[in-house]
Amino acid sequence: MLSVDEQMHIIKSGVSQIVPEAELRKKLERKEPLNVKLGVDPTAPDLHLGHAVPLRKMRQLQDLGHHVTLIIGNGTALIGDPSGRNSTRPPLTSAQIAENAQTYIEQAFKVLDESKTDLVYNADWLLKMNLEDLLGLTSNFTVARILERDDFSNRYKNQQSISLHEFLYPTLQAYDSVKIKADIEMGGNDQLFNLLAGRDLMSAMDMEPQVCITMPLLEGTDGVRKMSKSYKNYVALTDEPSDMFGKIMSIPDDMIVRYARLASSMSVEEADKIEAGLKDDSLHPNKVKRALARNIVAIYHDEQAAIDAEANFDALFKEHQIPDDVEEFAFDLSGDEVYLAKIISDAKMASSIGEARRLIDGGGVRIDGEAVEKGVYNVEREAIENKVLQVGKRKYKRIVAL
Amino acid sequence: MLSVDEQMHIIKSGVSQIVPEAELRKKLERKEPLNVKLGVDPTAPDLHLGHAVPLRKMRQLQDLGHHVTLIIGNGTALIGDPSGRNSTRPPLTSAQIAENAQTYIEQAFKVLDESKTDLVYNADWLLKMNLEDLLGLTSNFTVARILERDDFSNRYKNQQSISLHEFLYPTLQAYDSVKIKADIEMGGNDQLFNLLAGRDLMSAMDMEPQVCITMPLLEGTDGVRKMSKSYKNYVALTDEPSDMFGKIMSIPDDMIVRYARLASSMSVEEADKIEAGLKDDSLHPNKVKRALARNIVAIYHDEQAAIDAEANFDALFKEHQIPDDVEEFAFDLSGDEVYLAKIISDAKMASSIGEARRLIDGGGVRIDGEAVEKGVYNVEREAIENKVLQVGKRKYKRIVAL
Repeated sequence: MLSVDEQMHIIKSGVSQIVPEAELRKKLERKEPLNVKLGVDPTAPDLHLGHAVPLRKMRQLQDLGHHVTLIIGNGTALIGDPSGRNSTRPPLTSAQIAENAQTYIEQAFKVLDESKTDLVYNADWLLKMNLEDLLGLTSNFTVARILERDDFSNRYKNQQSISLHEFLYPTLQAYDSVKIKADIEMGGNDQLFNLLAGRDLMSAMDMEPQVCITMPLLEGTDGVRKMSKSYKNYVALTDEPSDMFGKIMSIPDDMIVRYARLASSMSVEEADKIEAGLKDDSLHPNKVKRALARNIVAIYHDEQAAIDAEANFDALFKEHQIPDDVEEFAFDLSGDEVYLAKIISDAKMASSIGEARRLIDGGGVRIDGEAVEKGVYNVEREAIENKVLQVGKRKYKRIVAL
Repeated sequence: MLSVDEQMHIIKSGVSQIVPEAELRKKLERKEPLNVKLGVDPTAPDLHLGHAVPLRKMRQLQDLGHHVTLIIGNGTALIGDPSGRNSTRPPLTSAQIAENAQTYIEQAFKVLDESKTDLVYNADWLLKMNLEDLLGLTSNFTVARILERDDFSNRYKNQQSISLHEFLYPTLQAYDSVKIKADIEMGGNDQLFNLLAGRDLMSAMDMEPQVCITMPLLEGTDGVRKMSKSYKNYVALTDEPSDMFGKIMSIPDDMIVRYARLASSMSVEEADKIEAGLKDDSLHPNKVKRALARNIVAIYHDEQAAIDAEANFDALFKEHQIPDDVEEFAFDLSGDEVYLAKIISDAKMASSIGEARRLIDGGGVRIDGEAVEKGVYNVEREAIENKVLQVGKRKYKRIVAL
């Protein structure tokens, strides 16, 4: 095992908070593998790079010799984590939960080292609790403490209803920490309250409390808002290699280091070098971005797919002289067909729909380098989504769904 | 069965609130026995006349042909009803709960008609609930609604901690109403919130909601503060006949009608007559009080005990020319012996302890009519508690423990 200082340098890379850092050092000083908890509620089937951020950090911990317990929250999913929400989650059926869990596990093991991971399901202990167990558990928490949570206190202040069963969520997921005897619990920034509840409960039950490590929310490909399906700025873990590569190439340069630290399998040493190199201009952003895109594609597919994706990217972009870092333009792509002329007009690539139609008819409009035929003002969704729309010689937009 | 109007006249006698009255009339119009719920948490072993107020009302309902379901809250007792409390109740062991429940039942059946009562234990269904059941149940309530409860909102405002398990109390006791399909739930004034929670839950579960009937808190023998062990102004249901008779005789005259309505087995018609008779002076308070005292002793002992208690009372009071309605004086009776001279002085029956000792030595001090011997300034607790202390010819106090 590396020294405590070396481990701390790696662990701290990219994290938001370690609460408390001194306790983490103490645990590391024991020179024994720590048990790192990640609890996941399989409420959504598809994961994106943002979801994978804590998984990446856990993989680093595994590479340092530690152990991961991945808790599939098929028990807590009966409530649905209210973190950061302003309304009660609709309940999932157990079939949905099981299906989502399966997808999640497959995707998680693209990042985690399976040989150093225990996969457990919290329904196994939570659904066996009876009223007496639950009263004992909840008696360790006060109403005021739970109501302090940002999302709950906001909802309470704004008179948005909080269903009483949501109040039980933090206590149940805290109990998971007791059950697996966690040394560390990992989570997103918005999970800090839940993580601290686990810490409090372990103390109340005379156990050595877990250390909480939170990871920041990763920005989406726009580099501005958090990565989210609803903002259409996400890279799904199941994206095809070419899509994934193209999306990473489209992130702003100032996101390169962040993605390297939070979303890639690059070592902390590499990330440190990239950060320094970009700062003193000894490294070119485009080159680094290509390495980053290859790295990420290789995690979720494989090395060959990464090489092929880059080749495809070059064939398409270089051949058609499309710049590497085309801006995205979001448009409503629902409905039977998409009105291409309106996209061109709305994206300010033409002054009006009329002009857009004339440009199409004149052969000046291309999709991924291929000219659109005369009179084709409407196209299928597949023909345009995630493709580069080119008008004239210098106007390019990557069209994404709104 | 009596007509709806006749029943309503009897039911309304002495009650605080019927929520809502129109629904109660509708239920009565069906001319079928209604199911009246009383939930009791066996948290205290000894009952007094104040506790018996809802029981008396239920007995009236039984006499009208209705049915009672008495729920022993051996499940909810694991929490302890937080109603009206400003701190979390200390948990009871199941042995304590079982013992208290036994005492409660024995005492309750001195009032209730056993042939028209179902005795059930809510541990039978509550302790069988698992997490999923509990989440389903609690999802019918909002945090804001529970926090509206006076005691909870006061504790929250005053930063007195509310343990999360206390928050579950109203939902669990509400579930009891669903389980037994209550038509009416009976409770003290301080129980209205809990009773309404039962009503809400039944509506949420598409059942005909129960009507809530609350009873006022009975004043103690001082006629001022609510009857309570802590105020030493209570008549225990297990008090000896003579003590019980004496205590009732000591209540202020303006409490006679209230005790008749809330604590006796007198019919509503009788209580109405007493109220009218005392108003127009056609009845003498002392005579009515005697009838009331006999009635109450007969409920908790028997007719003969009531007659004997009155005879004892007369023997003692008439013989020693002690007035019937001696005021109480409360004094700290703890410790090995009680300093009688100090009681006399503190009760303003002498101007100083020195004078009190001189009065004792002169033979001018009596306890229940018997002169205290010269030089006896200290007495055993038993020799003075609940006894009438007389100084000179006209000063009397009944001494009770502080």
